[in-house]
Amino acid sequence: MSDFADVTALRARAGEPYPDRAEYDVDLHPGWAIRGKPNGGYLLAMLARAGCLVVGTRDPLAVSAHYLRAPNPGPAEIRAQVIRRGRRVSTSRASMWQGGKVCIETLISSGRLPEAPAEWSGRPAPAMPAPEDCVEATAGAFTVELLDHIELRIDPATAPKPRPTGTPVVRFWFRLRDGAEPDVLTTLLAVDSGPPTIFNLARYGWAPTVELTVLVRGAPAPGWMRCESHATLLGGGWFDEEAALWDSTGALVAQARQLALTTSEQRPDGPAPDNPANP
Amino acid sequence: MSDFADVTALRARAGEPYPDRAEYDVDLHPGWAIRGKPNGGYLLAMLARAGCLVVGTRDPLAVSAHYLRAPNPGPAEIRAQVIRRGRRVSTSRASMWQGGKVCIETLISSGRLPEAPAEWSGRPAPAMPAPEDCVEATAGAFTVELLDHIELRIDPATAPKPRPTGTPVVRFWFRLRDGAEPDVLTTLLAVDSGPPTIFNLARYGWAPTVELTVLVRGAPAPGWMRCESHATLLGGGWFDEEAALWDSTGALVAQARQLALTTSEQRPDGPAPDNPANP
Repeated sequence: MSDFADVTALRARAGEPYPDRAEYDVDLHPGWAIRGKPNGGYLLAMLARAGCLVVGTRDPLAVSAHYLRAPNPGPAEIRAQVIRRGRRVSTSRASMWQGGKVCIETLISSGRLPEAPAEWSGRPAPAMPAPEDCVEATAGAFTVELLDHIELRIDPATAPKPRPTGTPVVRFWFRLRDGAEPDVLTTLLAVDSGPPTIFNLARYGWAPTVELTVLVRGAPAPGWMRCESHATLLGGGWFDEEAALWDSTGALVAQARQLALTTSEQRPDGPAPDNPANP
Repeated sequence: MSDFADVTALRARAGEPYPDRAEYDVDLHPGWAIRGKPNGGYLLAMLARAGCLVVGTRDPLAVSAHYLRAPNPGPAEIRAQVIRRGRRVSTSRASMWQGGKVCIETLISSGRLPEAPAEWSGRPAPAMPAPEDCVEATAGAFTVELLDHIELRIDPATAPKPRPTGTPVVRFWFRLRDGAEPDVLTTLLAVDSGPPTIFNLARYGWAPTVELTVLVRGAPAPGWMRCESHATLLGGGWFDEEAALWDSTGALVAQARQLALTTSEQRPDGPAPDNPANP
């Protein structure tokens, strides 16, 4: 079992009295975190796993998450519920709880990903220097525990360090450090693993996700994946960030968009807020 | 009251016994439909209205909808529930029911939209011919009742008629036919009101939405809005479609992405399926 499969494992609670519902115990690993708070994509992978498991499908197709509170490492609980089983698409709901409070709510459409190559693709994988010619992501003013488990190699033309580029675009290579090949759930982690693109506008600080939707478009082939993320609008403390993810064959495997808050009034090395929506 | 405000009105049921929940009766108008089925953006506007009302906020910020079944015109019910009230962001859930079956499930993050101009915007409104030099959208092989209530003027360079352009991009102007100015909820309708962009790949037929998330970024100024939508990947019967919406001042007011099915094996004039996920 890979490290990632291990830290996203679910333990079903026995004796669930309701049909079409399930409760799972999970352990939020302190190492898959940024500044002590488990990464949003890591948590999303667990929720998607629960959403598929409860409804009996193989693959998440569209996962929409609204983040209410950032949980801490340690025990947490996922409550999952079937909304509808369908022939091609099933729908479920999964929420993460810690200390009796809801932290994340998700809706999940799931089924089976297409296996044949796409009929039409309008966005080829971006040209990037090879991983060995890119900049390895390292923690800056604050701790990024996650980087002990994933390897990010940032295209130097888009790296926010040593200085912001002025354009909120970041391209990076992604792989798991333990050598495990990416699977479908890994795509949910990858799309949320890069540095916030607004670092390139010199807007540092905590950038808590409020909403994140990922469309999974295919199972990734083995090897490095590459991701391009960019922000479109920044204003009133809000910004969006869109990410596209390709596998090693150049197939587009996931598309994500999030709405996030920027808290650049905080010092970049200040403590992470418990409550992203109300930092 | 505008036609749109009228057809998205909610009637709260009296005697709701649970705190932080509400049930609303709604009438799905037969005129805000495509081939007899109420438009997904029209339905989304009602659900967002309910999600804000139940939690006591003014504006939807991020609305994620998973479509299970296409409801018919006529009476329906919205069940809304507070998930959390926050200082900057509140979260709620709203679902639409008809005939005892759930049709749409949504999660809604809401609060107050920023009122100041954006600090940074990376996507200016696209250059387009003036509305009077564009092509008025009209129904083709099937009925588009919605066009009695909205006016779409399609940039001729992107119009799927008289023949597909080969590129799945459509740009159009949007306004309400009754002369009402757009409000925040109108943006949810507008982003889902254009022809499917894959018509430009000669993939006609019903294109049911499975998941649609809209980020509302600002309240639109009066006047024509303009929208640019495009598909990125088509394969295995699935496609995505992204839409950006600008108001008459050129401010980006909404961003949307959907995952949809393409059913081009159907004749374009065939009946609309009751169940978009399992047509």
